[in-house]
Amino acid sequence: MTDHQPAPVTVLGLGSMGSALARAFLAAGHPTTVWNRTPSKAAPLVAEGARHTTAVDDAVAASPLVIACLTGYDDTRAVLESTTASWAGRVLVTLNSGTPTGARGMAAWAAEQGIRFLDGAVKDVPDAVGKAGTLLYYAGDPEGFAEHAATLRALGGDTVLLGDEPDLAKFYESAVGATLLPALVGFFAGAAAARNRGIPASELVPYSVRWLTMIGEILPLFAAEIDARDYSAGASSVDLFLTGADWDLEFARDAGIDDAWLRPLHDLIRRAGAAGHGPDSIAALTEVIRVP
Amino acid sequence: MTDHQPAPVTVLGLGSMGSALARAFLAAGHPTTVWNRTPSKAAPLVAEGARHTTAVDDAVAASPLVIACLTGYDDTRAVLESTTASWAGRVLVTLNSGTPTGARGMAAWAAEQGIRFLDGAVKDVPDAVGKAGTLLYYAGDPEGFAEHAATLRALGGDTVLLGDEPDLAKFYESAVGATLLPALVGFFAGAAAARNRGIPASELVPYSVRWLTMIGEILPLFAAEIDARDYSAGASSVDLFLTGADWDLEFARDAGIDDAWLRPLHDLIRRAGAAGHGPDSIAALTEVIRVP
Repeated sequence: MTDHQPAPVTVLGLGSMGSALARAFLAAGHPTTVWNRTPSKAAPLVAEGARHTTAVDDAVAASPLVIACLTGYDDTRAVLESTTASWAGRVLVTLNSGTPTGARGMAAWAAEQGIRFLDGAVKDVPDAVGKAGTLLYYAGDPEGFAEHAATLRALGGDTVLLGDEPDLAKFYESAVGATLLPALVGFFAGAAAARNRGIPASELVPYSVRWLTMIGEILPLFAAEIDARDYSAGASSVDLFLTGADWDLEFARDAGIDDAWLRPLHDLIRRAGAAGHGPDSIAALTEVIRVP
Repeated sequence: MTDHQPAPVTVLGLGSMGSALARAFLAAGHPTTVWNRTPSKAAPLVAEGARHTTAVDDAVAASPLVIACLTGYDDTRAVLESTTASWAGRVLVTLNSGTPTGARGMAAWAAEQGIRFLDGAVKDVPDAVGKAGTLLYYAGDPEGFAEHAATLRALGGDTVLLGDEPDLAKFYESAVGATLLPALVGFFAGAAAARNRGIPASELVPYSVRWLTMIGEILPLFAAEIDARDYSAGASSVDLFLTGADWDLEFARDAGIDDAWLRPLHDLIRRAGAAGHGPDSIAALTEVIRVP
């Protein structure tokens, strides 16, 4: 085998994400061994060229890089504890969902077993796996990452090692992902108000997308304020948002939508005001969100 | 005056947004009359070619299009009630912040006075006023809009009439803007967690911007589900977000951030689950956000 031949890889767990990972490796020419608790899920991948095994030992032994995309860390450990295959010369990469605490527990277990370990997160939907613009970030063993970076890049052109602390991928996942649920609830609230008025949600979309783009454009400014802990130059002040809070509630009442999810957000604004941040940038909310 | 000569326009209220509006009219060659309660604010605009008057009567009489950008609708009415200038042949446009209820009150007052009226919203920061890509939307008198659309376009290339119901601009403003505060709080929460770990907020930004872009890309899908009231094809299910809710709280505890703002968002997810939406798309939250 020369350096130019795609290296063998194993994928454990063939849910929608695991299957997408295996498919991307196959598309990039990697000899790909797949394993799943329910073996029938392997059939479409076998049709695309994957080697299927029902023995975890065999799956681990097949490749120097073993990707686990199971339900969670507990599940991953349960599956891997059943194998007697040697991990010498291999690297384990977990790509399941979970928390930083879960990733740390997994890393501690891997260390006990002498398994070189990386944890990662796919920052996109399964359909995006394997595309040039798709982002995956990893954390953990830097040498293991360097050894297999070329193979991992088959999963997405934007492949990043965040650092050697093994929970960093899940930390970024949670910290960055903290915007998702609240942003969606905001959109759904607007859509519910529109529905009550007879306006389709789809008519809001172009304006909402613009709004999200604009939010993205101001984040570097807010981040600079947060990092400098200097909120004094804020164009969008806490006081301005406090005025907006009353309007939000009036709108919710008027438009027939629940405001229970809004009130605690307003409490944060009020707390920032009470802490003397009234004329400061709204980014000062960062200070009150931190547990003292 | 020929059709090709920019029409005269009056701007009442010279805060940061009002001044930006006057400046955009001047830049487009419109004879621009400005008025402000505190006259000294007019000085920089006079230096750029504006005509300044301290008499509201005079300001209204100067132009067929009168833009009011005062603190709110009450303030606007108070200022306009002091004028005896005739509104025959003129159109009043309010561009202050406010709520749909406020806009309806203003429209009712204008109707009593026989004033043709439009309410609008600048969907951007003052610095963006006058640029080709800047969006302003209006609602109200369609003939008044048609008469002055060319002049209004000096404020932003993307100038839209949403309809003749005079509160529609503020309705869209509130419904679309409902995403802003929650999305920002999500970002600030992530930034607070990062700070506690010694990671600068600026390192999250590129990933957060990507995340916002991805949210924008899935909104058309969610809107289609909401408009069809069919959530059954959801890839991101309520149950999936319910699993994530526990992770959110674990992360908040672990990362040292307040979770009070998160819990009511989780309550919405739980209510959607209890209503039988567990396997459905997360867009089903729209149904529980509506007040029954």
